[in-house]
Amino acid sequence: MVADISAVLRWIDAHFDDSVARLRDFLRIPSVGADPAHDADTRRAAEWLVTELRGIGIEAALHDTPGHPMVVGRVEEGRGPRILYYGHYDVQPPDPLELWQSPPFEPVVVEGPHGPRIVARGAVDDKGQLLTILEALRAWKAVHGALPVPVTVFVEGEEESSSTNLEPFMEDHRGLLAADVVVVSDTLMPGIDQPAITTRLRGMVYAEVTVGGPAQDLHSGMFGGAVVNPIHVLAALVAGLHDDRGRVTVEGFYDRVQPLPPEEQRSWRELGLDEGAILAAAGVDRSVGEEGYSVIERIWGRPCLDVNGIWGGYTGEGAKTVIPAEAHAKLSCRLVPDQRPAEIFTALRRHFEARLPEGCRIGMRELGRGDPVCVPTDSPHLRAARDALREAFGREAALIGCGGSIPVVASFRRILGLDTILMGFGLDDDRMHGPNEKFELRCFERGIKSHALLLARMAELAGG
Amino acid sequence: MVADISAVLRWIDAHFDDSVARLRDFLRIPSVGADPAHDADTRRAAEWLVTELRGIGIEAALHDTPGHPMVVGRVEEGRGPRILYYGHYDVQPPDPLELWQSPPFEPVVVEGPHGPRIVARGAVDDKGQLLTILEALRAWKAVHGALPVPVTVFVEGEEESSSTNLEPFMEDHRGLLAADVVVVSDTLMPGIDQPAITTRLRGMVYAEVTVGGPAQDLHSGMFGGAVVNPIHVLAALVAGLHDDRGRVTVEGFYDRVQPLPPEEQRSWRELGLDEGAILAAAGVDRSVGEEGYSVIERIWGRPCLDVNGIWGGYTGEGAKTVIPAEAHAKLSCRLVPDQRPAEIFTALRRHFEARLPEGCRIGMRELGRGDPVCVPTDSPHLRAARDALREAFGREAALIGCGGSIPVVASFRRILGLDTILMGFGLDDDRMHGPNEKFELRCFERGIKSHALLLARMAELAGG
Repeated sequence: MVADISAVLRWIDAHFDDSVARLRDFLRIPSVGADPAHDADTRRAAEWLVTELRGIGIEAALHDTPGHPMVVGRVEEGRGPRILYYGHYDVQPPDPLELWQSPPFEPVVVEGPHGPRIVARGAVDDKGQLLTILEALRAWKAVHGALPVPVTVFVEGEEESSSTNLEPFMEDHRGLLAADVVVVSDTLMPGIDQPAITTRLRGMVYAEVTVGGPAQDLHSGMFGGAVVNPIHVLAALVAGLHDDRGRVTVEGFYDRVQPLPPEEQRSWRELGLDEGAILAAAGVDRSVGEEGYSVIERIWGRPCLDVNGIWGGYTGEGAKTVIPAEAHAKLSCRLVPDQRPAEIFTALRRHFEARLPEGCRIGMRELGRGDPVCVPTDSPHLRAARDALREAFGREAALIGCGGSIPVVASFRRILGLDTILMGFGLDDDRMHGPNEKFELRCFERGIKSHALLLARMAELAGG
Repeated sequence: MVADISAVLRWIDAHFDDSVARLRDFLRIPSVGADPAHDADTRRAAEWLVTELRGIGIEAALHDTPGHPMVVGRVEEGRGPRILYYGHYDVQPPDPLELWQSPPFEPVVVEGPHGPRIVARGAVDDKGQLLTILEALRAWKAVHGALPVPVTVFVEGEEESSSTNLEPFMEDHRGLLAADVVVVSDTLMPGIDQPAITTRLRGMVYAEVTVGGPAQDLHSGMFGGAVVNPIHVLAALVAGLHDDRGRVTVEGFYDRVQPLPPEEQRSWRELGLDEGAILAAAGVDRSVGEEGYSVIERIWGRPCLDVNGIWGGYTGEGAKTVIPAEAHAKLSCRLVPDQRPAEIFTALRRHFEARLPEGCRIGMRELGRGDPVCVPTDSPHLRAARDALREAFGREAALIGCGGSIPVVASFRRILGLDTILMGFGLDDDRMHGPNEKFELRCFERGIKSHALLLARMAELAGG
């Protein structure tokens, strides 16, 4: 009953230049969602998507929110599980502009070691990856006039600014978004020829800490040596967060941490990832972290704590002799199953309060949280995705982790009851969020084919 | 041979309202030397001084420099040691403006617990104190037509911005500035009725430290837990700068520190300073510092190290999950005789380098230095100043220390071979450099009389 997929794949090859041209059009829209100066551009990206979806033959509409609009398209065709595709049309700010070799919103195709690549803000995150889905849908519609399974396309414009309106929208549109599984392309592969599905995402809790000492800023000559300096206190608190084996010292931090399943450890080892290359990409010459774990295990499977920002006193040019009234830090913990963000925040607060010297004040604010995620690896949907990737790449898809958080995955689980298949086509060196962001055209092409194949595999689950 | 001083003191009382009016005029000029927007105002303050000096009958001129001009006035009258008076006409920026109860450059006289006080930027630092000298000279000239000793008045406009052109000017004008002793009013008294001469000034060395880790900023999700975080490294370095007895751990830091002479310790104790009040002025409820020393000893007589600024990573609103490539700190050491700034800077650098974890980089810049100063307490000039203060206040002048640096004192010693008598009339709560800076009119009046009496006492040293 499943329509012929090879014709779809041929169509993709034959029309690939058009796909790249459409990606260029999309990348030309500077949809910097976080910057109000780009509000009109950001909306224009949403409107562009609606037009494209309709051009493909998908009923689509723009749904206004207090922030940037949601784009939702639905197709009532075929048989089998309904796929809810999720992506985002907003992009990170392009700063620092001076580090770009070509203007961030004037996409160029340049030759790299893996063949041509497209360079622009949003190339990989997420416009290029989002279009792998749209172009697969387009190919199916062009070749067969219909999709083999029902699908919903759901694209937001606030992913780079905390997805503020995403959960409320989901809560209010459970019917519109109802589906059997979520499929997202916004993650990485371990290498250009190694397809992968991300099944582990670290959670997070983000906090801001303020240590107070003197009631006001003091002249360090007049009082230095006799009064508490909150920078010293904060530095000691930060220095005390890790022991000499690289473990976080916060009491209870590891209580709920599930040890890594040996089979997962083994399969990560078998990937044969070049840890030296990962470190080189980070611009370091060695790994620092929890004793007894590999680099990959530290990033994919173990929790950690990083101070993301610190400030206090005089930070301008030259010298100012001040003992500041306050010093501040922002810090985040990356969490793994079954750690809970709220518990870790409380443990952090207790930790600091217990270590605060007398005569000081401390305040803590929570600035964000997300649950860690483990996607079940034995579902028929995941098997379908692995099959599709194997066929597109000619190699078995790895099940990998991701050190970062994709909070929407937890939202889909909690609000819509859906698991998410993270089938990403980015590479470590794509400079997501950085200057000269790029997307390999080989990844773009295989991504489109993977999604075309996934539609076929999903249709087979209908039992046809 | 010495002219009658009581007539001079009576003249000061009779014309005090005029003195206050002149101080108001001076304070109305917003001579914020560090702010180029106020360059014309700053020059206007210098010109105002030249006009005033000439009005008193003192030959005075403005000397241009690459920065703000120097004002020099000379009087070739009387017999005895030549006094070189030093002061500054520039003031600190008034920010934060919103904390001022009246506009900083619209002086107002308000009633306080010690009687009327004048509130304005520069009231105590240094315009009010500088005018104690000018008004004393005016009174002598008015009553006796001449000064009893030769004097030179030397006023700069860059004291609040590192006195950039002061030393070159001194080098180039040794003849013009030649004298027997320097007298400065730019320091504090322990209490409104307790006159004092500051004989100890801490020196300083100021450094900026940069710790480097990854080659570029990293996403803390993608790399957190596996790579070095320079904020953690910097925090550990800062936390390790003091031991649990409050001593600086830098090797060799205390090697040249002269122990406090017991007689100095005793005289400071006998001052009966309210250490609780000092701490309350700093807005702290206890003293923190080197074990075994009183608050006063910690500030006046012992060296210390304070981090004056720290920054790294994301410091804006909200959450950003970054592991920064670098983290920075500004820090300063306050030094006492016979510590040497250059040696301490080198010791600091060695200290950090020895403790830097592998895989990190460190850089250090020196941003300023000044030698510690001990003024000889047994000179005839100092005895003259103590006598003058005793007569003006009816109480013995204390010999005190100052935790801060007044680099010009070391410059006078080095370039002109002169000791400096720091005869100050400010109070701890005068909010020097802060909003609502003030100067007590009682201090202004007694300051004028002290300087009038000092001229008489100096004349006696002529052996007349």
